[in-house]
Amino acid sequence: MVDVDEALETRIGEMARKTKEMGIPLMIVIEGPPASGKSRLSNALYMALDAKYTDFMATRPPRDIDLRYPFLQRYWNHLPKNGDINIHFRSWYAQYIDYKTRNIRENVRTEYVDIKQDIDNFEEMLMNNGYEIIKFYVHTSEEVRSRHIEKLKSNPILKWKAEEFEEQLDEVDYENEMQHFLDAPTGCPWTVIDFEDKGEAINTLFSTIIDRLEARVEDEEKADEPEVDGAFSEGYEAEFFDFDFEKEKIKKKEYKKILPGLQERMREIQFELYEKKIPLVIVYEGMDAAGKGGNIKRIREKLDPTGYTVNATGAPTDIELAHHYLWRFATDVPRSGHIGFYDRSWYGRVLVERIEGFASNKEWNQAYEEINDFEKSLYNSGAIILKFFLSLDKDEQLERFEDRQDDPEKQWKLTDEDWRNREKWNLYVEASEDMIRRTHTAHAPWHVVAGNNKKYARITALRKVIEACEARLEKE
Amino acid sequence: MVDVDEALETRIGEMARKTKEMGIPLMIVIEGPPASGKSRLSNALYMALDAKYTDFMATRPPRDIDLRYPFLQRYWNHLPKNGDINIHFRSWYAQYIDYKTRNIRENVRTEYVDIKQDIDNFEEMLMNNGYEIIKFYVHTSEEVRSRHIEKLKSNPILKWKAEEFEEQLDEVDYENEMQHFLDAPTGCPWTVIDFEDKGEAINTLFSTIIDRLEARVEDEEKADEPEVDGAFSEGYEAEFFDFDFEKEKIKKKEYKKILPGLQERMREIQFELYEKKIPLVIVYEGMDAAGKGGNIKRIREKLDPTGYTVNATGAPTDIELAHHYLWRFATDVPRSGHIGFYDRSWYGRVLVERIEGFASNKEWNQAYEEINDFEKSLYNSGAIILKFFLSLDKDEQLERFEDRQDDPEKQWKLTDEDWRNREKWNLYVEASEDMIRRTHTAHAPWHVVAGNNKKYARITALRKVIEACEARLEKE
Repeated sequence: MVDVDEALETRIGEMARKTKEMGIPLMIVIEGPPASGKSRLSNALYMALDAKYTDFMATRPPRDIDLRYPFLQRYWNHLPKNGDINIHFRSWYAQYIDYKTRNIRENVRTEYVDIKQDIDNFEEMLMNNGYEIIKFYVHTSEEVRSRHIEKLKSNPILKWKAEEFEEQLDEVDYENEMQHFLDAPTGCPWTVIDFEDKGEAINTLFSTIIDRLEARVEDEEKADEPEVDGAFSEGYEAEFFDFDFEKEKIKKKEYKKILPGLQERMREIQFELYEKKIPLVIVYEGMDAAGKGGNIKRIREKLDPTGYTVNATGAPTDIELAHHYLWRFATDVPRSGHIGFYDRSWYGRVLVERIEGFASNKEWNQAYEEINDFEKSLYNSGAIILKFFLSLDKDEQLERFEDRQDDPEKQWKLTDEDWRNREKWNLYVEASEDMIRRTHTAHAPWHVVAGNNKKYARITALRKVIEACEARLEKE
Repeated sequence: MVDVDEALETRIGEMARKTKEMGIPLMIVIEGPPASGKSRLSNALYMALDAKYTDFMATRPPRDIDLRYPFLQRYWNHLPKNGDINIHFRSWYAQYIDYKTRNIRENVRTEYVDIKQDIDNFEEMLMNNGYEIIKFYVHTSEEVRSRHIEKLKSNPILKWKAEEFEEQLDEVDYENEMQHFLDAPTGCPWTVIDFEDKGEAINTLFSTIIDRLEARVEDEEKADEPEVDGAFSEGYEAEFFDFDFEKEKIKKKEYKKILPGLQERMREIQFELYEKKIPLVIVYEGMDAAGKGGNIKRIREKLDPTGYTVNATGAPTDIELAHHYLWRFATDVPRSGHIGFYDRSWYGRVLVERIEGFASNKEWNQAYEEINDFEKSLYNSGAIILKFFLSLDKDEQLERFEDRQDDPEKQWKLTDEDWRNREKWNLYVEASEDMIRRTHTAHAPWHVVAGNNKKYARITALRKVIEACEARLEKE
């Protein structure tokens, strides 16, 4: 039996139910060297929480497939939804140390200093979006550790576990590596638990969690309603979308001449990216009927379909709404050597969500940096990132809408929502331009493309993609 | 450019939108030897369908992690939801051939004859639940294939692809292996496409799909409302749940004496299962307040938390509702060497869904066999499966409800739904007993456990689990 103070056990259950009701997602990180006793601590915690909404996630050494994704991919994939709890038994910290010490450096493109930054950004972004993260480091004297290992050794069935511990302690200087993290400034502080006495260690673990949850619940109760009004300025004037559309044209004959060659080249590039294990991320945003789907189609046309995915972004499902807004995208990024197209994307946070008031002013304002950090983490994992904004003018949109309305084969493309969005044209322009200003980065640049002439937009995008890939492939 | 008949392209788009609207999930399987041209066919199809609801799933050779799950796991994980389309470029058939020819036999416990059965069951179960499955085999003469390979070879960037094809053709007698499937009787027939002329091959592919979807839509339109009444008999008398509860008791003192030893033994067994890579599946069903959670907790208490998961089954989410009812369970089975506890399970289909009329009579009736087949597929992958039904009598339930109501620390455990379910006690008894009768199999037996005395039920379940595991470990 686990010797847990009954009052603490009752109280932690109460607080967990409370945060569950309030929809607060909770991540509890438990780090510590092998044989430190963190398994026993984690188990006591797991047993005290309701398994109905508590997940236990152990970080094991990365597999080959893990190395083909951004560093934090596994944690995105297991992110708790609102009201749920994750116990992270070894976490992104242990994984960092695994990466560094197991000599898998040649298999990952990421610089370690960038991973550290990714970790900081990840925690900060989650905390800013309502995630509660509580981190523990279990410290154990060598004496206690050896006692634990000796005890395991005395049981023939568990002996191998003891040997595994010894091997790990031999191989990796986990304590030394962790010390850097414990000493570094962080927005999400550590609690060190000294594991001399198991009962006391459990008490520290439980009390710390209870205190943090109590403080959080109190904060929530006095928090103000988030603001959603006043998100737009009056008389905003377009800056980027002010094309001379008459000039940005391409004739049908020329288009038919150029396109096949570019598509062939794109196909070759796909194979080169595959060989070099470089992921390619291509994001499309733009007004309704701007031609995003058709543009993507021309890039895809000669590609090997086993090597790319098209992600069309619609309204989120209930499960997606119950997670961080980046979750549904982060769990579906292309693995190394693959291409991911996004027909609309995570930028919905600062476009439709801002315009419709689904995100508060604070939320969409902080999203620019969160998105930049997210794209940085993709870049850090080796990705080429291109973002296209297809711009068209208001008259051209009307013409396309009417065209769709009149053509029985195209009617399905036009919805009432398209008309409603059109009424908010100016808001979309302001939100889109703010987005471009604040998320145009060296590692993930925007390309604003005049879209009145679809052929021109397609050739332009295809050329930009080829250029960016060639520039990168040259450096490999 | 792909030379596709424009009328067919328009029509296939129309039909796909129609089935999308009707919520029909569609799986298109495209098999064929390397360099057969199936990539070009699949691509033409992918380009003609709306990427917003079409996924392209290529089956690559299994990775180590795939071998730790049931054979069909990858396809469960990528099952389309209602209205969505999957293009399976190489499917479970190609995977079967991969398993067989790549000499990974020693890594999987499954007999090939059982995998074949699993495949048949999988397709049948999906079709019986509204999935439309259309299977193509692309047949290509050696001459056409060589021409294709030579063309690739002439491009320095694509040369490696040609070499890969040649290697595959050398290694695996794909055509011969596939012939067995093409010749075998199946509820889901194949269409063979002769790839001499690309345009004609595409026409065959598209027309076949259009015909099938047209027929399906017609069927749907004349289908009757499913029946949900008349699911229960009058005056049903309990057979299995008729315990002499007075006899099935254990004293507190004895319980405290026995429990720790059994838990220690369970812990050892966990490590033995881990070493032998045997998955263990433990399902709990039973009336509200029967003590399922507490029972599971006693088995878990000394286990290593990194090696098991607890799956608590609540009302399905919208995404879960849009999939086959087994989807949410099948995507979350324990991998080899791990333990999965289920606090309620897939049996909800024949319990709450039958009782509340969420499943039609046809649906819950066919579910018994589907569940047996599903459990068989787990068994085929090496799993030990135990199913517990905790039975308690109606008075005891009332006592526990009242207890919860009066105790401020337990009130959260009691909901209005519990009271509503209690009113349907007799329906639950009949549905539960039908379930036990029809899903008690040699590979996944039910254990009905008297639950009036919680301690007795815990010790009994723990002993049964240990027994079943020891019996199996002895045979390893």
